[in-house]
Amino acid sequence: MQEDDLIARHFAPLAGPGALGLRDDAAVMTPSAGHDLVVTVDAVVAGVHFFADDPAESVARKALRVNLSDLAAKGAVPRGFLLTLAAGEALSESWLTEFARGLGADSAAYAIPLLGGDTVRMPGPLLLSVTAFGEVPAGRMVPRGGATPGLVLGVTGTIGDAALGLRARLEPEAAWVRELPETARHHLLDRYLHPQPRNALADALREHAVAAMDVSDGLLGDLAKMMRAQRDPSQRATARLVVPDVPLSPAARQALAGDPALMRAIVTGGDDYEVLFAATEEGFAGLASAGREQGIAVTRIGSTQAWQGQPLQLEGAPADWLAGPLKFEHRLGA
Amino acid sequence: MQEDDLIARHFAPLAGPGALGLRDDAAVMTPSAGHDLVVTVDAVVAGVHFFADDPAESVARKALRVNLSDLAAKGAVPRGFLLTLAAGEALSESWLTEFARGLGADSAAYAIPLLGGDTVRMPGPLLLSVTAFGEVPAGRMVPRGGATPGLVLGVTGTIGDAALGLRARLEPEAAWVRELPETARHHLLDRYLHPQPRNALADALREHAVAAMDVSDGLLGDLAKMMRAQRDPSQRATARLVVPDVPLSPAARQALAGDPALMRAIVTGGDDYEVLFAATEEGFAGLASAGREQGIAVTRIGSTQAWQGQPLQLEGAPADWLAGPLKFEHRLGA
Repeated sequence: MQEDDLIARHFAPLAGPGALGLRDDAAVMTPSAGHDLVVTVDAVVAGVHFFADDPAESVARKALRVNLSDLAAKGAVPRGFLLTLAAGEALSESWLTEFARGLGADSAAYAIPLLGGDTVRMPGPLLLSVTAFGEVPAGRMVPRGGATPGLVLGVTGTIGDAALGLRARLEPEAAWVRELPETARHHLLDRYLHPQPRNALADALREHAVAAMDVSDGLLGDLAKMMRAQRDPSQRATARLVVPDVPLSPAARQALAGDPALMRAIVTGGDDYEVLFAATEEGFAGLASAGREQGIAVTRIGSTQAWQGQPLQLEGAPADWLAGPLKFEHRLGA
Repeated sequence: MQEDDLIARHFAPLAGPGALGLRDDAAVMTPSAGHDLVVTVDAVVAGVHFFADDPAESVARKALRVNLSDLAAKGAVPRGFLLTLAAGEALSESWLTEFARGLGADSAAYAIPLLGGDTVRMPGPLLLSVTAFGEVPAGRMVPRGGATPGLVLGVTGTIGDAALGLRARLEPEAAWVRELPETARHHLLDRYLHPQPRNALADALREHAVAAMDVSDGLLGDLAKMMRAQRDPSQRATARLVVPDVPLSPAARQALAGDPALMRAIVTGGDDYEVLFAATEEGFAGLASAGREQGIAVTRIGSTQAWQGQPLQLEGAPADWLAGPLKFEHRLGA
């Protein structure tokens, strides 16, 4: 009864038409005529992807937004989501109220209704697994593996803010953190707590990108991943990333001024939830133009070349980066 | 890289056509023309829904089958699934091999390919959250809340085996367990480890049932839930369950002979993963006939009546049951 009551009181107001009031075993989710459904699942865990004492409202938003970001990168329009909530202890009325408020605000803002879910009690940290549904015209999902030689590489927004925000929380006494102006610190912390999925660019990505993925595990690692996703050996490409062209926020620049070694955290740290893409010159121009309309930066960060024996080459990176293997650091507790 | 390697080696062989080799941010899942997609999510956790030392193959099957059971109850034909795997420690090569073998066997047996997933490390028990997709002709999903007065109540298979199997594992020294013949004990333990989802009856349920749900939290609690799911107050009904008509396996009868008090565990214990339904007399006959064709028992267990002020009334239950509130016991660790 407890689960039913909990769901009814806190989540029913977020339910979409296919959710059947969240009181059925399943929901109905049917794409519009001539469209494919795009499905993705991502889980976030307390102590790994967020702090156990983060505001419930922020936790809800993060769980949903990391999935919205996947839909954006695929050029898909959000349609609905399922939520698995696993908790180690009874969630308080006030926590649930706040959680539902955050979830409801984003559900409305991104037009992605709740379709159903499952709640389980377990002896472990809070875990939220979201399955998100989006739709694209049939056959038009933007693939991760579509990049070939001769394309422009681009990225939305700015890179590294969330990684710096996480680091600032973990080492608040570090000189670079203490020297950071309050507004800059706030910006970085906020980007860690609240990803900004680029769903406003989904249509443009579908129209103009040849390959895309969202940057969640660090720009360098994810770019290498995108190159390796090309499954046709005769088409595969090496990404050449121009490190000084990676777009940084003013706050990240201020942090870097305090400690230049942070550049490595910026490009490997993860939690960016920006869209990385490959496009033709014309495609890039189209995306840049859409970005201007939506107020989202779209920046050229490199190009793809004929395969060089490795998925990724760096231009303009500090010499010592190239000495050893690049460790792609990320995740709070991993 | 670790997650990629792990996924590629063990799960890629289970991937369906929409899964894009499990190397994209999302998968494509589109229902056939004129069909709705039915989506459901259920998580199982070590120490709650299965034992931490259960064979990996069985754990995989249980995680998938509890979701297949939801699709069956909705009259939906399986189409694919997503898997979130959260583990407290690195999963060994041998565990993963065995897990993928169990998952692959059921994926093939139930024609439900893997579409994608997410793996996360967390300081907690093993958790598997499966999102399953099925399809029904448009508008034909069997609802939980469709029951009205004047219908037959029925259930597939037998009730209580899994609950008794769980109890036998928790109290192996109990007299009733020690007295149980080996084949009966094996049957009960196996039903706890390996639910038998009734997907073979999905078409018949769609054709003949007015309301249905899968029995996962105990027959009594779930039957009350089905009655409460009717959202039109003028249509709601009270279920009258004839307790002696609840179908029992020979093994459960042998257990009951050893300890008659087990009847309460049988009807409240959960983990049955049978389909509970309401149908007209003609509908029930159609379902019973389909059950005979498929070798699955379909048993009448009661009827629905005009609303009596409560969702559930019991006929033929021991008098002491009615003295206090019925506690719906279930779940290993809850």
